[in-house]
Amino acid sequence: MQIAILLYENMTALDAIGPYEVLSRLPGAKLCFTAERAGPVRTDTGFLQLVAQRPLEEVPSADLLLVPGGPGDVAVRENEATLDWVRRIHAGSTWTTSVCTGSLILAAAGLLDGKPATTHWASLDTLAELGAKPRRERAVWSDKIVTAAGVSAGIDMALRLAAKIAGDDFARALQLGIEYDPDPPFDAGSPDKVEPELRDLVRNALLRA
Amino acid sequence: MQIAILLYENMTALDAIGPYEVLSRLPGAKLCFTAERAGPVRTDTGFLQLVAQRPLEEVPSADLLLVPGGPGDVAVRENEATLDWVRRIHAGSTWTTSVCTGSLILAAAGLLDGKPATTHWASLDTLAELGAKPRRERAVWSDKIVTAAGVSAGIDMALRLAAKIAGDDFARALQLGIEYDPDPPFDAGSPDKVEPELRDLVRNALLRA
Repeated sequence: MQIAILLYENMTALDAIGPYEVLSRLPGAKLCFTAERAGPVRTDTGFLQLVAQRPLEEVPSADLLLVPGGPGDVAVRENEATLDWVRRIHAGSTWTTSVCTGSLILAAAGLLDGKPATTHWASLDTLAELGAKPRRERAVWSDKIVTAAGVSAGIDMALRLAAKIAGDDFARALQLGIEYDPDPPFDAGSPDKVEPELRDLVRNALLRA
Repeated sequence: MQIAILLYENMTALDAIGPYEVLSRLPGAKLCFTAERAGPVRTDTGFLQLVAQRPLEEVPSADLLLVPGGPGDVAVRENEATLDWVRRIHAGSTWTTSVCTGSLILAAAGLLDGKPATTHWASLDTLAELGAKPRRERAVWSDKIVTAAGVSAGIDMALRLAAKIAGDDFARALQLGIEYDPDPPFDAGSPDKVEPELRDLVRNALLRA
């Protein structure tokens, strides 16, 4: 199974690395990080570079495409070469997936027109402007397209994909392997669960990013 | 606040990237990925390289040290230069932390002698052999040393560290920012929660890695 993960400048690393840690361990998985150019790609904090093994033109197809999010999505949405690549991969994929604002890239490529989808909670309006029908859910399944909510939601989505692809027992083994028995310190992971002031503060900080 | 994250060949990426995504966003955080040599470091699946910005000798101190785990811990535990660096950083740190089998490296450096600590559930015996008092907990706090359980446990630990360092409201904002409202598909993230056969299967797969 060929898995392609798109990298781009100013992406959020965990959007890609959470699902990677699950999907790369599927039976027979061959996973490739790819970007416009091969080599180091700077993520949104400025502190980390992930290495793209191959440029997009050397990745002609994939069974599973994952598009992460991050503030860099804005530039990718205007990059016709990358959007063309996304469309080409999607045309032959079994699964086309995104995490966080990665769905805005899928939408900009025209893959979500009129379809239910999700994204980071602070970007649902933008997702609607790009033609999708936004949903406030952890992951939205629409035929072969799966869009996950913000950043950490990619881990939950990847485990569900693993169950579809390799069965529940294999997915449970992967979950045990990464000891994913979450114990967040606060019940503050969703905009419905915090006071409006905190929600606005985080939304504004993200818009500045 | 200077944060140093150790990279090494055959580490598990999510051990580092989960906490990085939280800690790099603390007020005034300056975060550095460092390794024996600067440049790309191959992670345990063989599909991903993370870039170390600076070699260890150019990182003389840090307020917070994070040591991730992964099958490569075995080689690091025999690398006296790296263990010396860990000891030097720990001598001046405010927090010394690990995720997964990163605690085996802390133990090999002599930092956990007789102290309570945790690690990936499949490595608790090794942690005891290295002189620590193993605990089956999501994170163990022992003065300034904090050790987290396997892989994904680093996210929970990092949010708790963020609360100690920047206050509960800031940590809640970070949790909301990464939309950490976990929804795992199975209740299989802990060895206590699965059948012995699945536990043995995962343990053996990890030992082969």
